[in-house]
Amino acid sequence: MSDLENSLATIIEVFHKYSEKEGDKHKLKKSELKELLTSELPTLTEHVRDQATMDSLFESLDTDGDSECDFQEFMTFVTMVTICCHEFFEHHEDE
Amino acid sequence: MSDLENSLATIIEVFHKYSEKEGDKHKLKKSELKELLTSELPTLTEHVRDQATMDSLFESLDTDGDSECDFQEFMTFVTMVTICCHEFFEHHEDE
Repeated sequence: MSDLENSLATIIEVFHKYSEKEGDKHKLKKSELKELLTSELPTLTEHVRDQATMDSLFESLDTDGDSECDFQEFMTFVTMVTICCHEFFEHHEDE
Repeated sequence: MSDLENSLATIIEVFHKYSEKEGDKHKLKKSELKELLTSELPTLTEHVRDQATMDSLFESLDTDGDSECDFQEFMTFVTMVTICCHEFFEHHEDE
């Protein structure tokens, strides 16, 4: 597989590594999402780990309101994070 | 960096590897997108490489109609592909 194909596979694998821990194995509970963010996005989330921020993030991702984060909702978050990183680097590069 | 952080960085790097080739270095022309798909997503795109499919894909991604695909539009495509792969594997696993 190419680097890009491996990257997409990694996103899927990481989601499942946490979603299958408890309850519905195809969805992330709030505690599973928190563990995923802390362990897998340590650099990006180091300033947003308080419970209020987590509650607010989880609520904004859970668009269908079932108190769980499915893969589609997770991809919204991944996209948001990647676009933010891209904008940071693009801006940095233009300076 | 974690595997997930590396994956997000790879998506950004792959976009830039092709976007900077010609014209606006922060956007993909149709020829750059085609080269990216052929080289970086060979497995996923092997059946959709004819010009009509490429034209139609490019048109659907280019939501602001500037005839180029910016990073945000590219992420829509990456998300779509990742969700499709995830659904394929989830379905496969449940069989």
